[in-house]
Amino acid sequence: MSDAIVFHFDFSSPYSYIASEVIDALAGKYGREIDWRPVLLGAVFQKTGQPLLVNVPLKGEYSLRDFARSARYHGVPFAFPAKFPLSTVAAARAYYWLAGQDRGKARAFAQAAFRAYWVEGRDISEAAVLEEIAAGLGIDTAALAAGLASPLVKERLRAETDGAIAAGMCGAPFFIVDSEPFWGADRLPQIEKWLQDGGF
Amino acid sequence: MSDAIVFHFDFSSPYSYIASEVIDALAGKYGREIDWRPVLLGAVFQKTGQPLLVNVPLKGEYSLRDFARSARYHGVPFAFPAKFPLSTVAAARAYYWLAGQDRGKARAFAQAAFRAYWVEGRDISEAAVLEEIAAGLGIDTAALAAGLASPLVKERLRAETDGAIAAGMCGAPFFIVDSEPFWGADRLPQIEKWLQDGGF
Repeated sequence: MSDAIVFHFDFSSPYSYIASEVIDALAGKYGREIDWRPVLLGAVFQKTGQPLLVNVPLKGEYSLRDFARSARYHGVPFAFPAKFPLSTVAAARAYYWLAGQDRGKARAFAQAAFRAYWVEGRDISEAAVLEEIAAGLGIDTAALAAGLASPLVKERLRAETDGAIAAGMCGAPFFIVDSEPFWGADRLPQIEKWLQDGGF
Repeated sequence: MSDAIVFHFDFSSPYSYIASEVIDALAGKYGREIDWRPVLLGAVFQKTGQPLLVNVPLKGEYSLRDFARSARYHGVPFAFPAKFPLSTVAAARAYYWLAGQDRGKARAFAQAAFRAYWVEGRDISEAAVLEEIAAGLGIDTAALAAGLASPLVKERLRAETDGAIAAGMCGAPFFIVDSEPFWGADRLPQIEKWLQDGGF
Protein backbone atom coordinates (compact mmCIF):
# COMPACT_ATOMS: atom_id res chain seq x y z
CA MET A 1 0.00 0.00 0.00
CA SER A 2 1.26 3.45 -0.88
CA ASP A 3 1.34 6.40 1.50
CA ALA A 4 -1.83 7.69 3.10
CA ILE A 5 -3.56 10.66 1.48
CA VAL A 6 -3.40 13.71 3.74
CA PHE A 7 -6.79 15.40 4.25
CA HIS A 8 -6.44 18.89 5.75
CA PHE A 9 -9.81 20.31 6.74
CA ASP A 10 -11.70 22.60 9.08
CA PHE A 11 -14.91 21.46 10.74
CA SER A 12 -16.56 24.75 9.72
CA SER A 13 -15.91 24.23 5.99
CA PRO A 14 -18.95 22.91 4.09
CA TYR A 15 -16.89 21.50 1.24
CA SER A 16 -14.66 19.77 3.80
CA TYR A 17 -17.75 18.15 5.28
CA ILE A 18 -18.92 16.96 1.85
CA ALA A 19 -15.46 15.55 1.09
CA SER A 20 -15.33 13.86 4.51
CA GLU A 21 -18.36 11.79 3.57
CA VAL A 22 -16.86 10.36 0.40
CA ILE A 23 -13.07 10.49 0.53
CA ASP A 24 -12.43 7.27 2.48
CA ALA A 25 -14.47 5.17 0.06
CA LEU A 26 -12.75 6.77 -2.93
CA ALA A 27 -9.27 6.16 -1.50
CA GLY A 28 -10.22 2.65 -0.41
CA LYS A 29 -10.98 1.68 -4.02
CA TYR A 30 -7.28 2.18 -4.73
CA GLY A 31 -5.97 0.61 -1.51
CA ARG A 32 -5.16 3.96 0.06
CA GLU A 33 -5.99 5.32 3.49
CA ILE A 34 -6.87 8.86 4.53
CA ASP A 35 -4.91 10.72 7.17
CA TRP A 36 -7.50 13.14 8.64
CA ARG A 37 -5.85 16.37 9.83
CA PRO A 38 -8.08 19.22 11.08
CA VAL A 39 -6.61 22.71 11.01
CA LEU A 40 -7.82 26.25 11.67
CA LEU A 41 -8.89 27.71 8.33
CA GLY A 42 -8.84 31.23 9.77
CA ALA A 43 -5.03 31.04 9.77
CA VAL A 44 -5.12 30.21 6.04
CA PHE A 45 -7.43 33.18 5.39
CA GLN A 46 -4.97 35.43 7.22
CA LYS A 47 -2.24 34.34 4.78
CA THR A 48 -4.35 34.60 1.65
CA GLY A 49 -6.03 37.82 2.79
CA GLN A 50 -9.32 36.38 1.54
CA PRO A 51 -12.68 37.00 3.22
CA LEU A 52 -15.19 34.28 4.05
CA LEU A 53 -16.73 33.07 0.76
CA VAL A 54 -20.31 33.66 1.92
CA ASN A 55 -19.48 37.33 2.58
CA VAL A 56 -18.15 38.05 -0.93
CA PRO A 57 -20.64 39.91 -3.17
CA LEU A 58 -22.13 37.62 -5.84
CA LYS A 59 -20.01 34.65 -4.70
CA GLY A 60 -21.79 34.56 -1.34
CA GLU A 61 -25.25 34.01 -2.80
CA TYR A 62 -23.92 31.53 -5.35
CA SER A 63 -21.96 29.59 -2.75
CA LEU A 64 -24.97 28.95 -0.53
CA ARG A 65 -26.73 27.42 -3.51
CA ASP A 66 -23.62 25.49 -4.50
CA PHE A 67 -23.02 24.01 -1.02
CA ALA A 68 -26.48 22.42 -0.99
CA ARG A 69 -26.34 21.34 -4.64
CA SER A 70 -22.86 19.83 -4.23
CA ALA A 71 -24.14 17.84 -1.22
CA ARG A 72 -27.07 16.55 -3.30
CA TYR A 73 -24.67 15.72 -6.13
CA HIS A 74 -22.70 13.48 -3.78
CA GLY A 75 -25.83 12.10 -2.07
CA VAL A 76 -24.80 13.59 1.27
CA PRO A 77 -27.33 15.04 3.79
CA PHE A 78 -26.82 18.76 4.33
CA ALA A 79 -28.48 21.73 6.05
CA PHE A 80 -26.74 25.08 6.29
CA PRO A 81 -26.43 25.77 10.05
CA ALA A 82 -27.97 28.78 11.77
CA LYS A 83 -24.65 29.61 13.43
CA PHE A 84 -21.95 30.15 10.81
CA PRO A 85 -19.04 30.44 11.05
CA LEU A 86 -18.08 29.20 14.48
CA SER A 87 -14.89 28.38 16.33
CA THR A 88 -13.57 24.90 15.63
CA VAL A 89 -10.60 25.12 17.99
CA ALA A 90 -12.15 22.79 20.59
CA ALA A 91 -13.36 20.25 18.02
CA ALA A 92 -9.93 20.10 16.38
CA ARG A 93 -8.17 19.79 19.72
CA ALA A 94 -10.56 17.02 20.73
CA TYR A 95 -9.65 15.22 17.51
CA TYR A 96 -5.91 15.35 18.19
CA TRP A 97 -6.34 14.35 21.83
CA LEU A 98 -8.31 11.30 20.68
CA ALA A 99 -5.88 10.54 17.85
CA GLY A 100 -3.10 10.28 20.42
CA GLN A 101 -4.94 7.32 21.94
CA ASP A 102 -7.07 5.69 19.24
CA ARG A 103 -7.01 6.84 15.63
CA GLY A 104 -10.18 4.96 14.76
CA LYS A 105 -12.09 6.67 17.53
CA ALA A 106 -10.68 10.06 16.51
CA ARG A 107 -11.89 9.47 12.95
CA ALA A 108 -15.36 8.44 14.20
CA PHE A 109 -15.46 11.57 16.35
CA ALA A 110 -14.52 13.77 13.38
CA GLN A 111 -17.29 12.28 11.26
CA ALA A 112 -19.81 12.68 14.09
CA ALA A 113 -18.75 16.30 14.72
CA PHE A 114 -19.07 17.12 11.00
CA ARG A 115 -22.59 15.62 10.90
CA ALA A 116 -23.63 17.28 14.17
CA TYR A 117 -22.83 20.65 12.59
CA TRP A 118 -23.67 20.21 8.90
CA VAL A 119 -26.74 18.00 9.23
CA GLU A 120 -28.18 18.72 12.68
CA GLY A 121 -26.99 22.33 13.01
CA ARG A 122 -25.59 21.77 16.49
CA ASP A 123 -23.12 24.28 17.91
CA ILE A 124 -19.86 22.32 17.88
CA SER A 125 -17.95 25.31 19.26
CA GLU A 126 -19.40 24.41 22.68
CA ALA A 127 -17.51 21.98 24.89
CA ALA A 128 -20.80 20.53 26.16
CA VAL A 129 -21.86 19.59 22.61
CA LEU A 130 -18.48 18.01 21.88
CA GLU A 131 -18.72 16.02 25.10
CA GLU A 132 -22.18 14.75 24.12
CA ILE A 133 -20.82 13.66 20.74
CA ALA A 134 -17.87 11.96 22.46
CA ALA A 135 -20.11 10.25 25.00
CA GLY A 136 -22.14 8.80 22.12
CA LEU A 137 -18.94 7.11 20.92
CA GLY A 138 -18.12 5.68 24.35
CA ILE A 139 -15.36 8.20 25.02
CA ASP A 140 -14.53 9.19 28.62
CA THR A 141 -15.75 12.80 28.63
CA ALA A 142 -13.95 13.81 31.83
CA ALA A 143 -10.66 12.68 30.30
CA LEU A 144 -11.56 14.52 27.07
CA ALA A 145 -12.28 17.74 28.99
CA ALA A 146 -8.89 17.48 30.67
CA GLY A 147 -7.25 16.62 27.35
CA LEU A 148 -8.61 19.76 25.65
CA ALA A 149 -6.68 21.89 28.14
CA SER A 150 -3.43 20.03 27.57
CA PRO A 151 -0.58 22.21 26.25
CA LEU A 152 0.53 19.30 24.07
CA VAL A 153 -2.82 19.20 22.30
CA LYS A 154 -2.89 22.98 21.83
CA GLU A 155 0.61 22.88 20.41
CA ARG A 156 -0.29 20.01 18.09
CA LEU A 157 -3.15 21.96 16.49
CA ARG A 158 -0.91 25.00 15.99
CA ALA A 159 1.77 22.79 14.40
CA GLU A 160 -0.75 21.06 12.12
CA THR A 161 -2.13 24.39 10.94
CA ASP A 162 1.34 25.83 10.33
CA GLY A 163 2.39 22.63 8.56
CA ALA A 164 -0.61 22.68 6.25
CA ILE A 165 0.08 26.29 5.28
CA ALA A 166 3.74 25.45 4.71
CA ALA A 167 2.55 22.65 2.39
CA GLY A 168 0.58 25.26 0.40
CA MET A 169 -2.91 24.93 1.89
CA CYS A 170 -4.89 27.81 0.37
CA GLY A 171 -8.43 26.70 1.22
CA ALA A 172 -10.35 23.70 2.53
CA PRO A 173 -10.47 20.82 1.99
CA PHE A 174 -6.82 20.48 0.92
CA PHE A 175 -5.49 17.05 -0.01
CA ILE A 176 -1.95 15.87 -0.57
CA VAL A 177 -1.59 12.75 -2.71
CA ASP A 178 1.99 11.60 -3.39
CA SER A 179 3.21 15.20 -2.81
CA GLU A 180 0.60 16.56 -5.24
CA PRO A 181 -1.76 19.16 -3.70
CA PHE A 182 -5.49 19.23 -4.52
CA TRP A 183 -7.76 22.01 -3.22
CA GLY A 184 -11.51 21.56 -3.01
CA ALA A 185 -14.15 18.84 -2.93
CA ASP A 186 -14.45 19.50 -6.67
CA ARG A 187 -10.98 18.05 -7.20
CA LEU A 188 -12.13 14.56 -6.14
CA PRO A 189 -12.39 13.44 -9.80
CA GLN A 190 -8.78 14.56 -10.38
CA ILE A 191 -7.69 12.73 -7.21
CA GLU A 192 -9.41 9.60 -8.49
CA LYS A 193 -7.64 9.85 -11.86
CA TRP A 194 -4.34 10.40 -10.01
CA LEU A 195 -4.88 7.24 -7.95
CA GLN A 196 -6.01 5.25 -10.99
CA ASP A 197 -3.14 6.27 -13.26
CA GLY A 198 -0.41 6.93 -10.67
CA GLY A 199 -0.36 10.60 -11.59
CA PHE A 200 -1.22 12.33 -14.87
CA MET B 1 -34.66 20.28 -27.81
CA SER B 2 -34.59 22.31 -24.60
CA ASP B 3 -33.12 25.79 -24.26
CA ALA B 4 -29.47 26.41 -25.02
CA ILE B 5 -27.00 26.44 -22.14
CA VAL B 6 -25.57 29.92 -21.62
CA PHE B 7 -21.77 29.96 -21.38
CA HIS B 8 -20.46 33.26 -19.99
CA PHE B 9 -16.68 33.49 -20.28
CA ASP B 10 -13.69 35.76 -20.68
CA PHE B 11 -10.96 34.94 -23.18
CA SER B 12 -8.34 35.60 -20.48
CA SER B 13 -9.75 32.99 -18.08
CA PRO B 14 -7.85 29.67 -18.17
CA TYR B 15 -10.74 27.66 -16.76
CA SER B 16 -13.00 29.24 -19.40
CA TYR B 17 -10.60 28.05 -22.07
CA ILE B 18 -10.58 24.51 -20.66
CA ALA B 19 -14.39 24.48 -20.50
CA SER B 20 -14.60 25.85 -24.05
CA GLU B 21 -12.82 22.76 -25.34
CA VAL B 22 -15.27 20.28 -23.83
CA ILE B 23 -18.63 21.96 -23.19
CA ASP B 24 -20.15 21.57 -26.67
CA ALA B 25 -19.54 17.81 -26.74
CA LEU B 26 -20.96 17.42 -23.23
CA ALA B 27 -24.11 19.39 -24.08
CA GLY B 28 -24.45 17.62 -27.43
CA LYS B 29 -24.75 14.24 -25.67
CA TYR B 30 -28.02 15.53 -24.21
CA GLY B 31 -29.27 17.28 -27.34
CA ARG B 32 -28.42 20.72 -26.01
CA GLU B 33 -26.57 23.60 -27.62
CA ILE B 34 -24.21 26.12 -26.09
CA ASP B 35 -24.81 29.85 -26.36
CA TRP B 36 -21.28 31.32 -26.17
CA ARG B 37 -21.30 34.77 -24.52
CA PRO B 38 -17.95 36.49 -23.82
CA VAL B 39 -17.93 39.15 -21.11
CA LEU B 40 -15.33 41.29 -19.35
CA LEU B 41 -14.35 39.48 -16.18
CA GLY B 42 -12.78 42.65 -14.77
CA ALA B 43 -16.30 44.02 -14.25
CA VAL B 44 -17.16 40.91 -12.21
CA PHE B 45 -14.01 41.38 -10.10
CA GLN B 46 -15.07 44.98 -9.45
CA LYS B 47 -18.36 43.71 -8.02
CA THR B 48 -16.86 40.89 -5.96
CA GLY B 49 -13.90 42.99 -4.84
CA GLN B 50 -11.69 39.97 -5.50
CA PRO B 51 -8.13 40.18 -6.83
CA LEU B 52 -6.78 38.08 -9.69
CA LEU B 53 -6.41 34.49 -8.46
CA VAL B 54 -2.76 34.23 -9.47
CA ASN B 55 -1.95 37.25 -7.28
CA VAL B 56 -3.46 35.81 -4.07
CA PRO B 57 -0.86 34.46 -1.63
CA LEU B 58 -0.85 30.61 -1.55
CA LYS B 59 -3.74 30.43 -4.05
CA GLY B 60 -1.60 31.96 -6.78
CA GLU B 61 1.06 29.28 -6.72
CA TYR B 62 -1.53 26.53 -6.40
CA SER B 63 -3.64 27.89 -9.24
CA LEU B 64 -0.80 27.84 -11.76
CA ARG B 65 -0.30 24.16 -10.98
CA ASP B 66 -4.03 23.53 -11.09
CA PHE B 67 -4.58 25.25 -14.48
CA ALA B 68 -2.07 22.93 -16.16
CA ARG B 69 -3.24 19.82 -14.30
CA SER B 70 -6.90 20.55 -15.05
CA ALA B 71 -6.04 20.89 -18.73
CA ARG B 72 -4.22 17.53 -18.65
CA TYR B 73 -7.20 16.01 -16.81
CA HIS B 74 -9.47 17.03 -19.69
CA GLY B 75 -6.90 16.15 -22.37
CA VAL B 76 -6.68 19.75 -23.54
CA PRO B 77 -3.42 21.38 -24.75
CA PHE B 78 -2.32 24.22 -22.50
CA ALA B 79 0.62 26.57 -21.95
CA PHE B 80 0.42 29.48 -19.54
CA PRO B 81 1.03 32.60 -21.66
CA ALA B 82 3.91 35.02 -21.06
CA LYS B 83 1.49 37.97 -21.12
CA PHE B 84 -1.18 37.55 -18.46
CA PRO B 85 -3.66 39.02 -17.92
CA LEU B 86 -4.45 41.01 -21.03
CA SER B 87 -7.34 43.03 -22.38
CA THR B 88 -10.01 40.93 -24.05
CA VAL B 89 -12.21 43.86 -25.08
CA ALA B 90 -11.29 43.60 -28.78
CA ALA B 91 -11.64 39.80 -28.90
CA ALA B 92 -15.07 39.94 -27.25
CA ARG B 93 -16.22 42.75 -29.54
CA ALA B 94 -14.98 40.79 -32.57
CA TYR B 95 -17.05 37.84 -31.38
CA TYR B 96 -20.27 39.85 -31.15
CA TRP B 97 -19.67 41.56 -34.47
CA LEU B 98 -19.27 38.14 -36.08
CA ALA B 99 -22.24 36.69 -34.18
CA GLY B 100 -24.43 39.38 -35.72
CA GLN B 101 -23.69 37.88 -39.15
CA ASP B 102 -22.85 34.20 -38.71
CA ARG B 103 -23.06 32.45 -35.35
CA GLY B 104 -21.06 29.45 -36.56
CA LYS B 105 -18.21 31.67 -37.66
CA ALA B 106 -18.32 33.58 -34.38
CA ARG B 107 -18.05 30.32 -32.48
CA ALA B 108 -15.10 29.17 -34.64
CA PHE B 109 -13.42 32.52 -34.04
CA ALA B 110 -13.89 32.20 -30.26
CA GLN B 111 -12.33 28.75 -30.26
CA ALA B 112 -9.44 29.95 -32.41
CA ALA B 113 -8.86 33.00 -30.18
CA PHE B 114 -8.86 30.81 -27.04
CA ARG B 115 -6.29 28.48 -28.60
CA ALA B 116 -4.16 31.31 -29.93
CA TYR B 117 -3.81 32.62 -26.38
CA TRP B 118 -3.85 29.47 -24.21
CA VAL B 119 -1.87 27.15 -26.47
CA GLU B 120 0.27 29.41 -28.65
CA GLY B 121 0.69 32.31 -26.21
CA ARG B 122 -0.23 34.91 -28.83
CA ASP B 123 -1.24 38.38 -27.70
CA ILE B 124 -4.96 38.43 -28.46
CA SER B 125 -5.30 41.95 -27.08
CA GLU B 126 -3.75 43.18 -30.35
CA ALA B 127 -6.05 43.96 -33.26
CA ALA B 128 -3.44 42.65 -35.72
CA VAL B 129 -3.43 39.23 -34.03
CA LEU B 130 -7.24 39.08 -34.02
CA GLU B 131 -7.27 39.97 -37.72
CA GLU B 132 -4.81 37.17 -38.47
CA ILE B 133 -7.03 34.71 -36.60
CA ALA B 134 -10.07 36.01 -38.47
CA ALA B 135 -8.31 35.82 -41.82
CA GLY B 136 -7.51 32.17 -41.12
CA LEU B 137 -11.27 31.57 -40.90
CA GLY B 138 -12.01 33.37 -44.17
CA ILE B 139 -13.41 36.46 -42.46
CA ASP B 140 -13.17 39.85 -44.18
CA THR B 141 -10.65 41.60 -41.92
CA ALA B 142 -11.36 45.13 -43.18
CA ALA B 143 -15.03 44.67 -42.33
CA LEU B 144 -14.01 43.22 -38.94
CA ALA B 145 -11.79 46.23 -38.18
CA ALA B 146 -14.67 48.56 -38.99
CA GLY B 147 -17.04 46.39 -36.95
CA LEU B 148 -14.85 46.62 -33.85
CA ALA B 149 -15.34 50.38 -33.81
CA SER B 150 -19.12 50.14 -34.14
CA PRO B 151 -21.05 51.69 -31.24
CA LEU B 152 -23.56 48.82 -31.50
CA VAL B 153 -20.85 46.23 -30.88
CA LYS B 154 -19.38 48.20 -27.97
CA GLU B 155 -22.84 48.54 -26.43
CA ARG B 156 -23.53 44.82 -26.93
CA LEU B 157 -20.43 43.81 -24.92
CA ARG B 158 -21.37 46.21 -22.13
CA ALA B 159 -24.91 44.81 -22.06
CA GLU B 160 -23.69 41.20 -22.06
CA THR B 161 -21.34 41.89 -19.16
CA ASP B 162 -24.02 43.72 -17.16
CA GLY B 163 -26.51 40.95 -17.93
CA ALA B 164 -24.15 38.21 -16.77
CA ILE B 165 -23.52 40.02 -13.50
CA ALA B 166 -27.26 40.57 -13.05
CA ALA B 167 -27.67 36.80 -13.53
CA GLY B 168 -25.21 36.25 -10.67
CA MET B 169 -21.93 35.71 -12.53
CA CYS B 170 -19.27 35.65 -9.80
CA GLY B 171 -16.35 34.15 -11.77
CA ALA B 172 -15.57 32.46 -15.08
CA PRO B 173 -16.70 30.29 -16.68
CA PHE B 174 -20.30 30.78 -15.56
CA PHE B 175 -22.99 28.55 -17.03
CA ILE B 176 -26.76 28.84 -16.85
CA VAL B 177 -28.67 25.61 -17.43
CA ASP B 178 -32.47 25.85 -17.14
CA SER B 179 -32.08 28.92 -14.86
CA GLU B 180 -29.57 27.05 -12.64
CA PRO B 181 -26.16 28.78 -12.34
CA PHE B 182 -22.89 26.80 -12.35
CA TRP B 183 -19.55 28.50 -11.74
CA GLY B 184 -16.30 26.89 -12.81
CA ALA B 185 -14.96 24.25 -15.19
CA ASP B 186 -15.05 21.98 -12.14
CA ARG B 187 -18.85 22.08 -12.18
CA LEU B 188 -18.99 20.22 -15.51
CA PRO B 189 -19.81 16.92 -13.74
CA GLN B 190 -22.74 18.62 -11.97
CA ILE B 191 -23.90 20.11 -15.27
CA GLU B 192 -23.79 16.64 -16.79
CA LYS B 193 -25.86 15.17 -13.95
CA TRP B 194 -28.32 18.08 -14.34
CA LEU B 195 -28.71 17.35 -18.05
CA GLN B 196 -29.00 13.62 -17.45
CA ASP B 197 -31.58 13.81 -14.68
CA GLY B 198 -33.36 17.05 -15.60
CA GLY B 199 -32.12 18.68 -12.40
CA PHE B 200 -31.21 17.15 -9.06
